[in-house]
Amino acid sequence: MRNWPDFITIKEVGPRDGLQNEKKFLSTEDKVTWINMLSNTGIKEIEYSSFVNPKWIPALADAKEVGKRIKRNPSVLYSALVPNMKGLENALEAGIDGASVFMSASESHNLKNINKSIDKTYPVLKEVIDTANEEGKKVTGYVSTVFDCPYEGRVSPEQVLRVCDQLLEDGVDEISLGDTIGSAVPSQVQALLDEIVTRLPKEKIIMHFHDTRGMAIANIMTSLQFGITRFDTSIGGLGGCPYAPGAAGNVATNDVLYLLNGLGIYTGIDEQKLQEASIYIQNKLGKKLPSRSVAFIEGTA
Amino acid sequence: MRNWPDFITIKEVGPRDGLQNEKKFLSTEDKVTWINMLSNTGIKEIEYSSFVNPKWIPALADAKEVGKRIKRNPSVLYSALVPNMKGLENALEAGIDGASVFMSASESHNLKNINKSIDKTYPVLKEVIDTANEEGKKVTGYVSTVFDCPYEGRVSPEQVLRVCDQLLEDGVDEISLGDTIGSAVPSQVQALLDEIVTRLPKEKIIMHFHDTRGMAIANIMTSLQFGITRFDTSIGGLGGCPYAPGAAGNVATNDVLYLLNGLGIYTGIDEQKLQEASIYIQNKLGKKLPSRSVAFIEGTA
Repeated sequence: MRNWPDFITIKEVGPRDGLQNEKKFLSTEDKVTWINMLSNTGIKEIEYSSFVNPKWIPALADAKEVGKRIKRNPSVLYSALVPNMKGLENALEAGIDGASVFMSASESHNLKNINKSIDKTYPVLKEVIDTANEEGKKVTGYVSTVFDCPYEGRVSPEQVLRVCDQLLEDGVDEISLGDTIGSAVPSQVQALLDEIVTRLPKEKIIMHFHDTRGMAIANIMTSLQFGITRFDTSIGGLGGCPYAPGAAGNVATNDVLYLLNGLGIYTGIDEQKLQEASIYIQNKLGKKLPSRSVAFIEGTA
Repeated sequence: MRNWPDFITIKEVGPRDGLQNEKKFLSTEDKVTWINMLSNTGIKEIEYSSFVNPKWIPALADAKEVGKRIKRNPSVLYSALVPNMKGLENALEAGIDGASVFMSASESHNLKNINKSIDKTYPVLKEVIDTANEEGKKVTGYVSTVFDCPYEGRVSPEQVLRVCDQLLEDGVDEISLGDTIGSAVPSQVQALLDEIVTRLPKEKIIMHFHDTRGMAIANIMTSLQFGITRFDTSIGGLGGCPYAPGAAGNVATNDVLYLLNGLGIYTGIDEQKLQEASIYIQNKLGKKLPSRSVAFIEGTA
C-alpha cells in the first residue's frame, strides 16, 4: 500500500480534451499563447488539438493553425488526436510528434462515437497507425469507456484487454485507458489493473480519468499503487461534461500535482508556472474551473 | 489493498460545520425543514448545530431554537458542538443525544481558535465531558489540525496521539480526527493511522476530511484500508473555506456515498432522499454546492 513510483509523467490534454467540451470558443491566438505557457511548465507532453472533422468539434476547427503557430519547446512532445488518414495528413502538415487514435472498449459507445463497429474501426486506425509509424511519430491508442459505458453499463476487463491487445498488435506504442464518463471507483480500477499489469507492459499504460463524480484522485492513487507512471490530466480540470452542468472534466493537472508533490513523487512540473497558465485560461473562459486547487489562485475569475 | 469494512457510519455535519462557514444566514424554519429531511435519509447521526457563543458563529445563533423544533427520528443520534459549560447547558435544554467538544492538535491553532493553550483547554473540556457523561450523552472529542496546522505546518502523529490519549482519559467516547485545512494527502493519512490504529480502538476513531484540495475521497479510501468505519461528511460539500473563495468545505456526503456504494459498502443511506435534501439546501443558499455529485441533480441552482 505504501509503494508508488518515484517519477510520474503527465500528459496535458487540456488544449484538446478540455477545450473540446467548452462552449466558449477560444481564439487561435489565445490558444497559442496558452499552449506556449504550458510548454514552459515542465510538462513533458501536450496534446495540443484534435484533427477530427471540425463539423464534430468546432471548438478545435483551428487545429492546423494552432499547430503551425505554437512555439515548440524541444523538451515537450506535441501530440494531437487523429481519427483517420485525412486527420493525420492535416496533423502532419501542422506538425506533431505524436498521433493519438481512439476507439471504445464498448460496442455501443464506439458505434455512437465513431459510427462503426469495433471490428470495423481497427482497419481505419491501422492505416493511421502504420503511416504515423512510418513518419516516425509516436502513436497512442486511446481506449474509451474502460470501466463503464453510458449505454451498456459495466465494461469487463476482458473487453478492454481485447481492444488493447489488438491495438498493440496493430502498432500503437502505448495505450491510454479512459474513464470517459468519470464513473469509476477504486475497486473498478483495481479489477482492471489486476488484469492489465499482468498482461501488458506497465510503461505502455496511461490512465485517463475524468473527475465527474470526484473519484479521480482516489483512482490515480489506486493506479500509483499498481506502479502506473503515466496519467492524462487537464489544467484546471477543464472540460466539464456537456450532459451534466457544473460537472468536472478531466482530472485537474493542478490537483494531481498537489497529490504527487505531497507523496514526494517527482513530475518536473513548476507549480507556479502551472498556476499562471491556469489563471490565463480561467480568465479567457471567464469561469471558475473545477480544479479544487485553482480556488487558491489569486486573481481568478 | 482490497480490504475494507462492510459497513460505514456517516455523521452528517452539514447543519453545523457546513452552515457555520456559509455567508448566507439560513432561517430557523429552513434549517428545521432541512434537518428533518436529513433525518429521513437513513443517516445515523446528525450534528445539528453549535452552542458556541453566537458572537463567534452568528450563522448558528439559533441553535437552541433549532434543537427544540426539529422532529426527532428515533433512529438518528442528534449531537451538537459545545465549547464549554454554558454551551452544554443550552444544548441540554435544546435536546442532544451527543455533545462534541473540540480542540486542536497544534498549539497555535488551539490558541487562535480557543484562546487557550492546549494544557489549559483540557480542564475546560473535562468539566463538559463529565457533565455530559453524567447526563448520559455520548461525548465526541474533535481534534483539529491533525495533519497540518495553518500556523505551524506539519503536525506529528505523536502530537495528535498525545491529545487523543488525554481526551480519552478525560472521558470522551470517541475521537474525530480533523484535516481542518483539507491539506492532507494519503501518505499523511497512512502515517497517522499507522500510529492511531495500533494504539487506539478503531471503533472510537472518526475521520473528518475537508476537500479543500480535492484529496478527501482518496484520504477516505486510504482510511478504509486501515479499517476505519466512521466518517464525518457534509451534504453537498457545504461549508467552503472563508479564506479561499470557491474552495470546497467538508467532503461531500454525496461523493462519499457514491464511493461507498461503488465499493459495495453499506451505509443505510437512501441516495434519492439525500439528493432531495441537497437540492433543498442548494436552492435555499442559492449557489452551486462543491460536491461533484450534486451536479447530477436536476433542478439545482
